Amino acid sequence: MPLQLRSLVRPDATLELSLADVPVPTPATADEVIVRMEASPMNPSDIGVMFTGADIAKARQSGTGERPVITAPLSAAAMAAASGRVGQAMPVGNEGAGTVVAAGDSPTAQALLGKKVAMIGGAMYAEYRALPAKQCLVLPDGATATQGASCFVNPLTALGMVETMRMEGHRALVHTVGASNLGQMLNRICLKDGIPLVNIVRRPEQAELLTKQGAKHVVDSSAEDFNAKLVEACLVTGATIAFDAIGGGQLAGRLLFAMEAALLQRPGHTYNRYGTDVHKQVYVYGSLNRSPIEIERNFGSAWAVGGWLLFPFLQRAGAERVQQLKQRIVDELTSTFASHYTREITLPEVLTLDAIASYSRMATGEKTLVRIAPG
Amino acid sequence: MPLQLRSLVRPDATLELSLADVPVPTPATADEVIVRMEASPMNPSDIGVMFTGADIAKARQSGTGERPVITAPLSAAAMAAASGRVGQAMPVGNEGAGTVVAAGDSPTAQALLGKKVAMIGGAMYAEYRALPAKQCLVLPDGATATQGASCFVNPLTALGMVETMRMEGHRALVHTVGASNLGQMLNRICLKDGIPLVNIVRRPEQAELLTKQGAKHVVDSSAEDFNAKLVEACLVTGATIAFDAIGGGQLAGRLLFAMEAALLQRPGHTYNRYGTDVHKQVYVYGSLNRSPIEIERNFGSAWAVGGWLLFPFLQRAGAERVQQLKQRIVDELTSTFASHYTREITLPEVLTLDAIASYSRMATGEKTLVRIAPG
Repeated sequence: MPLQLRSLVRPDATLELSLADVPVPTPATADEVIVRMEASPMNPSDIGVMFTGADIAKARQSGTGERPVITAPLSAAAMAAASGRVGQAMPVGNEGAGTVVAAGDSPTAQALLGKKVAMIGGAMYAEYRALPAKQCLVLPDGATATQGASCFVNPLTALGMVETMRMEGHRALVHTVGASNLGQMLNRICLKDGIPLVNIVRRPEQAELLTKQGAKHVVDSSAEDFNAKLVEACLVTGATIAFDAIGGGQLAGRLLFAMEAALLQRPGHTYNRYGTDVHKQVYVYGSLNRSPIEIERNFGSAWAVGGWLLFPFLQRAGAERVQQLKQRIVDELTSTFASHYTREITLPEVLTLDAIASYSRMATGEKTLVRIAPG
Repeated sequence: MPLQLRSLVRPDATLELSLADVPVPTPATADEVIVRMEASPMNPSDIGVMFTGADIAKARQSGTGERPVITAPLSAAAMAAASGRVGQAMPVGNEGAGTVVAAGDSPTAQALLGKKVAMIGGAMYAEYRALPAKQCLVLPDGATATQGASCFVNPLTALGMVETMRMEGHRALVHTVGASNLGQMLNRICLKDGIPLVNIVRRPEQAELLTKQGAKHVVDSSAEDFNAKLVEACLVTGATIAFDAIGGGQLAGRLLFAMEAALLQRPGHTYNRYGTDVHKQVYVYGSLNRSPIEIERNFGSAWAVGGWLLFPFLQRAGAERVQQLKQRIVDELTSTFASHYTREITLPEVLTLDAIASYSRMATGEKTLVRIAPG
């Protein structure tokens, strides 16, 4: 029987990852199609759901080579956070690509038979996936599943940042993990669309990488003059919104301070005890640093720090606009929205200590592709 | 010549508070009126502008009894924050009440002659104030300047919180300084309008005070079971927005956690790694605790913490709605919007060490009125 990866939090505070045997699905409605999965990326959000805060350093591998099983302990805090999913063996994998091998009777579903499609919706770390035809994005002729596997999460997230910037009346933005796969993609979008982008990186070689890719404003947070350079970049670009994947620590507050300091340098500024009246926004969309966010308030009163996620953004943007964004992704699939993978593993290999040690690092610029079937 | 209180940051990092002699103003335009000031409250925002972070414990008094002068040192950080106002002797006092003693030729201005009015707009710690007629709110017959002195800042702030709650789609709110003058006023508004309000207080006697005033949900942050009681109050009320005057420390994060924990207890809730999809908001409008805000993210992704101020709210609400709010304040001046003062001082007494020691504490429930002239 076909395999599906499952993530289970057991009542004894142990995470158990395994491959379950599931029946080959058949179309349940006229509009449903069955996709033979070929490739699926391991995004940080997938890894988050899979491991749900378990102590990866203490993970153990058992089972067989074809059916490995991973177990890892959860701390009391992680167990409390995961209390809602104890005992439920959850499928994992936000997105992926494959070939439609069966279809319901509706013309829309039938039209997809044999087509290579990209999908979003969970349970993609599996050999087969049933889903409504309208949730499939047909890849352009000649595109591979590898090229189409990461069609949604990173491209829509990067486009969503630019859209959010526009919707909330800002004209330039800051991104705190500039050298990540997502960051490089955002840089390509901003270069193409003429949007000023401040890229924050954490090492000189990452700055070099982005500069080679045409990035105009790159600030290295490991440099001694980081804060001053950040103010300078905010001044030159006019950035008043930032998207931050780091989360914990002082970065959010420093971003707000840099934006305000830049605004205070504008000609014609007059003193106001409450700071400028320009709204400064930091959206936290990741948790690379899990320590608390620490905000020293030295940037006036017109500010906000909040969570940002792809799915609420898509709801806010509306179906019509999201369709336009998806069309753009397909149109620029091998240029603006190209994803690069540093490692390919099979579905059983996802559950090996060697692979886990690599992909769970979520190192900047590294990305793992799960190769489920050729294609 | 009439007196006006001035706050000056000198280049030698010394704050200097004094009474300046200014000419009796005359109407500069047909629409301007001259008000003889009678009473003006000392709001936390006034005290903030006056002292601008100077070290009050090191304040010295000089000058004469009629013209006292206060000096106090500013730290390097306070000096940096005040750099925009060095050398400018700024008038102080956001609001107050008095009698119109001269008016320009326009019918609107002339109609105010002899009337007792309330005003907002700065420079109210003075014996006379010139301002446009339309900025004056005529007090009801028989109302005193004392009753009208605090017509704007606290009433509009309290109403603004309720308005913001409604505008942003919440149905109940939390206020973190429930026993303050503002908090007691907010409690009266919410009782009258049937809005569920969670009052946080810092001492048992404050809880008793509010309960005696009819408050239904009072949570004492000094109690051992504070967090549990806060969750309970959020569950009962459905509060998903909070207004916080404390600012620093862990309270903002705890509020978000309590709101989310309450949402997770709703029947029919299903597990989602990113938490509930209900937006949880904390607005920080004060700085009783000046240490950094520390936010431990244990409440999902639908959240925001940001600054909130009266004036941007008034702009956002629009002139028509603000006029309705002002009318309500006048209509309920001696009931819902009554202010209570624990001390009255004269204008020269504002600049005495004894008075400063009292009003600069900004103790919960205490409020000082500057009695500028009888009325």
